[in-house]
Amino acid sequence: MSSIQDSQVKYATATDAFLEQQLADLPQLPSQLIDAMRYALLSQGKRVRPLLIGLVSEVLDVPLHKALPLMAAIECIHAYSLVHDDLPAMDDDDLRRGQPTCHKKFPEGIAILVGDALQTMAFDIIMHAENLDAAKKVRCAKVLTRAAGFHGMCGGQAIDLDATDVSIDLAQLTLLHNLKTGALLNACIDFVVELSHDIAPAHKAALQQYSKAVGLAFQVQDDILDVTSDSVTLGKPSGSDVDLNKSTFPALLGLKEAQLYCETLLADALTACAQLPYNTQGLQDFAKYIIQRKH
Amino acid sequence: MSSIQDSQVKYATATDAFLEQQLADLPQLPSQLIDAMRYALLSQGKRVRPLLIGLVSEVLDVPLHKALPLMAAIECIHAYSLVHDDLPAMDDDDLRRGQPTCHKKFPEGIAILVGDALQTMAFDIIMHAENLDAAKKVRCAKVLTRAAGFHGMCGGQAIDLDATDVSIDLAQLTLLHNLKTGALLNACIDFVVELSHDIAPAHKAALQQYSKAVGLAFQVQDDILDVTSDSVTLGKPSGSDVDLNKSTFPALLGLKEAQLYCETLLADALTACAQLPYNTQGLQDFAKYIIQRKH
Repeated sequence: MSSIQDSQVKYATATDAFLEQQLADLPQLPSQLIDAMRYALLSQGKRVRPLLIGLVSEVLDVPLHKALPLMAAIECIHAYSLVHDDLPAMDDDDLRRGQPTCHKKFPEGIAILVGDALQTMAFDIIMHAENLDAAKKVRCAKVLTRAAGFHGMCGGQAIDLDATDVSIDLAQLTLLHNLKTGALLNACIDFVVELSHDIAPAHKAALQQYSKAVGLAFQVQDDILDVTSDSVTLGKPSGSDVDLNKSTFPALLGLKEAQLYCETLLADALTACAQLPYNTQGLQDFAKYIIQRKH
Repeated sequence: MSSIQDSQVKYATATDAFLEQQLADLPQLPSQLIDAMRYALLSQGKRVRPLLIGLVSEVLDVPLHKALPLMAAIECIHAYSLVHDDLPAMDDDDLRRGQPTCHKKFPEGIAILVGDALQTMAFDIIMHAENLDAAKKVRCAKVLTRAAGFHGMCGGQAIDLDATDVSIDLAQLTLLHNLKTGALLNACIDFVVELSHDIAPAHKAALQQYSKAVGLAFQVQDDILDVTSDSVTLGKPSGSDVDLNKSTFPALLGLKEAQLYCETLLADALTACAQLPYNTQGLQDFAKYIIQRKH
């Protein structure tokens, strides 16, 4: 079995090529919008979500050509959310992945449209996926609307905005992140479950337990890195949560407890893997990667 | 046959009730996002697009319960585009339909999220439509992605942004409006064509000729009203195009020529109606309403 780094490169490369083709297929318009979309979409993200979709596809024996449009679609949603979250009226960030944020590189109005058009593109990609029948397209699009919209990511970001300068408790912080970050990671699992031929309810539940633990660990680790890392390693300003007076896991729990919480979530994820009658080495490595990453 | 005003009330009422139910079905979150979504979505718009869908549905004998989710979905897209277009980084408008714009009533970050979540809701509504099979859902969602995204509305708005303070010619202005406004109006026709059992290619082409003419007339009339009407009648600041130094049809053609152009487009729309073997009185009245409206 290949290492997690090999898998990351494999699925990131495939996703990027697919997205490049999507942009190449767009009509020519007298506007800088397409350049700004390319900037936001293809600026060397970690491609964590395509990696997770790829690893779960290996486990459930779903071929890459079926999973690829969903990897691309979820990256469109993720990229749009970063562009909008970075806007002055939201988190007001100037740097992302070591580069100027979209609204710093392009006019702010164009950055807003980048997010809008990338969201539409996500659904466009699913609807035009060549290797999925209509019923599967609808089921996958349902997964995405619930993960990306009010029920998920947008709802979480709204709670986050309203919670700035307000102290919230651990339950609210957990809800916030389950929606803001967890929902899209859960969608990675749900996509592949929809694409797989059949899967026992208990195994589906174990996969969802896995993604819930990993999704939360992802955010706890993000909060930890914001405190412990530096801007160069992160590619974005460190300490920005403190500057914005945001509630974080280290702020609520203390740094050491937050790190222990990450370990507990990792153990939950590994327990879920142990309940699956498949080779889950890739998923186990992914969970470890999430809490051990440095940026 | 009922008057255009009766039809407008009928379809607006049905659409609003459907959208109210959508909002009522959302989960409770500790955030003002849902209030802001309701504000943007249910503040007495003209519901021109549901009216057009309703009139074409009457012509092609598509029952209201099939068309209603599409009326609601397209209003979600329209409402999101108004919220984002009004933002300070875009048109920077303070008034919309006589009320404070969404980002004036709520924090600007919440207004951005309102647009994002309403776009997702549009696709969510289509995917969950009770009376459409999966194949029709996919075909309608394809119509919407192409009308709302880079190929359509977002592309048009991007050209509009880039054209501020720059003079563009009539061909570019027409392209801009065909994308920014025309694409969603065309989608109203295309939705109903997808829902209808079968329609001759020549009749489909006549309907598209109709919607193209009406869509452009809609925008030319908008530009004319911006010059000739007052802020109270419009419910938004008149003269804002001039203030923003935007290219408009009256600016490029002169007011009288722009009014004549509207009449020519109306004649095109009526010619298209004459090619259809249906009772098109409603569509004819709609075309006249579009160029005779005062706000």
